[in-house]
Amino acid sequence: MEPDEIMTGTLYGIGLGPGDPELMTLKAHRLIASARVIAYPAPDSGESFARSIASDVIPVGVREIPIVVPMRVDRFPAQEIYDKAAEEIAAVLANGEDVVTLCEGDPFFFGSFMYLFERLSDRFTIEIVPGVTSLTACAAQLRRPLTARNDVLTVIPGPLPDADIRRKIEEAQAVAIMKVGRHLTRLKTLLSDMGLLEKAGYVERASLPEQKVHRLIDLETDTAPYFSMILIYKGEEAWTLPPSYSS
Amino acid sequence: MEPDEIMTGTLYGIGLGPGDPELMTLKAHRLIASARVIAYPAPDSGESFARSIASDVIPVGVREIPIVVPMRVDRFPAQEIYDKAAEEIAAVLANGEDVVTLCEGDPFFFGSFMYLFERLSDRFTIEIVPGVTSLTACAAQLRRPLTARNDVLTVIPGPLPDADIRRKIEEAQAVAIMKVGRHLTRLKTLLSDMGLLEKAGYVERASLPEQKVHRLIDLETDTAPYFSMILIYKGEEAWTLPPSYSS
Repeated sequence: MEPDEIMTGTLYGIGLGPGDPELMTLKAHRLIASARVIAYPAPDSGESFARSIASDVIPVGVREIPIVVPMRVDRFPAQEIYDKAAEEIAAVLANGEDVVTLCEGDPFFFGSFMYLFERLSDRFTIEIVPGVTSLTACAAQLRRPLTARNDVLTVIPGPLPDADIRRKIEEAQAVAIMKVGRHLTRLKTLLSDMGLLEKAGYVERASLPEQKVHRLIDLETDTAPYFSMILIYKGEEAWTLPPSYSS
Repeated sequence: MEPDEIMTGTLYGIGLGPGDPELMTLKAHRLIASARVIAYPAPDSGESFARSIASDVIPVGVREIPIVVPMRVDRFPAQEIYDKAAEEIAAVLANGEDVVTLCEGDPFFFGSFMYLFERLSDRFTIEIVPGVTSLTACAAQLRRPLTARNDVLTVIPGPLPDADIRRKIEEAQAVAIMKVGRHLTRLKTLLSDMGLLEKAGYVERASLPEQKVHRLIDLETDTAPYFSMILIYKGEEAWTLPPSYSS
């Protein structure tokens, strides 16, 4: 290293888990508590979900880089927003400071952290701290084992076409459909056609005070938030979902 | 409640994460630190992996119920061992005490906790604390996003026949093959035939000091431990795995 060369900082992608701050890992807690610069996705109005999970741990006086992504139907953010955020973060890293990025769930499991990763991984050291995913958080709330023995598990984004989803469900023993949101009615119809409505559980906002847990067959609404999931139990165990959930 | 009726205890299934004790959640830490009775799977010789992850947190004087499962090739334990363990745990719960069961990874993600769950869930309150799975821990170590946008992820147990595994890989964008173990050579041949060797990463004992991380194409051994995983990146992103991993 040249005498006047500055060691660049490390970019941390920190999984915060599904929402309950107690489902954060000890490592996430330590890194956030000692952070000097944090970054996180934020909506154009209202609170950042990621920041809210970590809020009790964020030190006073930390520099914050909110990455403001307008809520859009397809949720694939405009590239320019991430270009700009990546350059702001790059400037901090180049100056020798670490940046701790707060990520809902796990950074590499359907997360927006990949948009920073793909812009910065060739220039800077990136460390990923894995987190509890919504996948197992929802299974915990439905109180049925997600996968056992030699089950195949398939995780399917809800926006895919019916024919694709149907074929993938047929091939698996355990199925998670993520990002149910505005696809709820269509997915309920599809699962009803497949005779799977009673084997499907629905969870929204898993582990948060406002979470909802139901058998899909009992769900009376036709609207679901983005953070909602359907789990389907069709393996050899074929766990029966209890008729009522207390939460 | 009758005056002389005892409130039964709660059975906790606690996910400890992939191995690094710092990847335990705050909730797991709290519940283990205040436990009076713990249970955990243990081999017939040597240390329990689950217990070793939590060992610094387990209080002095706690009652321990090791569930000794002989190491067998197929890892599907004899039913009598779990019958006996469940009855020992049931006696504690019936006496009004909680039992904290230590589980590698997540209790409902290919874990042995289901053998207790299926024996006790009709009689006792069971609470699951989800944990970081080996799935995202391995993705973190390979330093490539596991899933993005509308990728389909399929998790396949390594013991399945080649034809099944091939078909499921063809249908997904991201693939995890769990429990590689003695199937390593067969899986390498299959992935080579499919032209996927360079898109596959191999991780064993993720997050532990003795972890190994390689591109599958660079892996020179033909033996793998039970706790090993292959991740295949064939989605739209097609992240190139770097030629060398430092760990």
